[in-house]
Amino acid sequence: MFEVKGNIWIEGPNGTLIGFGRMKLLANIQKFGSISEAARSMNMSYRQAWESVDAMNKESRKALVTTSSGGVGGGGAKITEEGVRILRSFNELQERFDKFKEHETGQLEL
Amino acid sequence: MFEVKGNIWIEGPNGTLIGFGRMKLLANIQKFGSISEAARSMNMSYRQAWESVDAMNKESRKALVTTSSGGVGGGGAKITEEGVRILRSFNELQERFDKFKEHETGQLEL
Repeated sequence: MFEVKGNIWIEGPNGTLIGFGRMKLLANIQKFGSISEAARSMNMSYRQAWESVDAMNKESRKALVTTSSGGVGGGGAKITEEGVRILRSFNELQERFDKFKEHETGQLEL
Repeated sequence: MFEVKGNIWIEGPNGTLIGFGRMKLLANIQKFGSISEAARSMNMSYRQAWESVDAMNKESRKALVTTSSGGVGGGGAKITEEGVRILRSFNELQERFDKFKEHETGQLEL
């Protein structure tokens, strides 16, 4: 009946590096190879998706997403090695946090 | 340089029972014996404090805060036994969560 809920994110010196929403966005960019398709799949505006990618790239030591324009297929977006690494790290952190919440919910005496 | 941040709260069937802000509010009501003084000490409006107290009382099995009006001293607010119990429980949960974040921050490889 009662449940422990919460959010976590990783904060860098100038702002948020990654949180739940950005994790989903990175995973969708990896899946679709395109920021606009990733945004569409999440009901997020292209502008918001682009700004999130830009913020992540600025906050991390190396770019997490690179984009190319034109050419066959009309360009697209790619997750870098660093992006894959951070996506995996945050995914694992989120899983440990989900377990924490589940465990704490089980301990509640309300 | 990078840090794991986050929020947790306890959700009941109809909304939030308690989170960080409400924990501080309960602790201040306990300290000052008054919703208005507790609110003032936190730069929170009386209305917002009163609504938070009302929401907590509705969301929990028993009232967490009781108020009296008039009489010597002009009435005031008191934390019930249930309020003390929930305040302590959430405090301890928040401490475990703070340790979780601290540990995870130490493990970050960014």
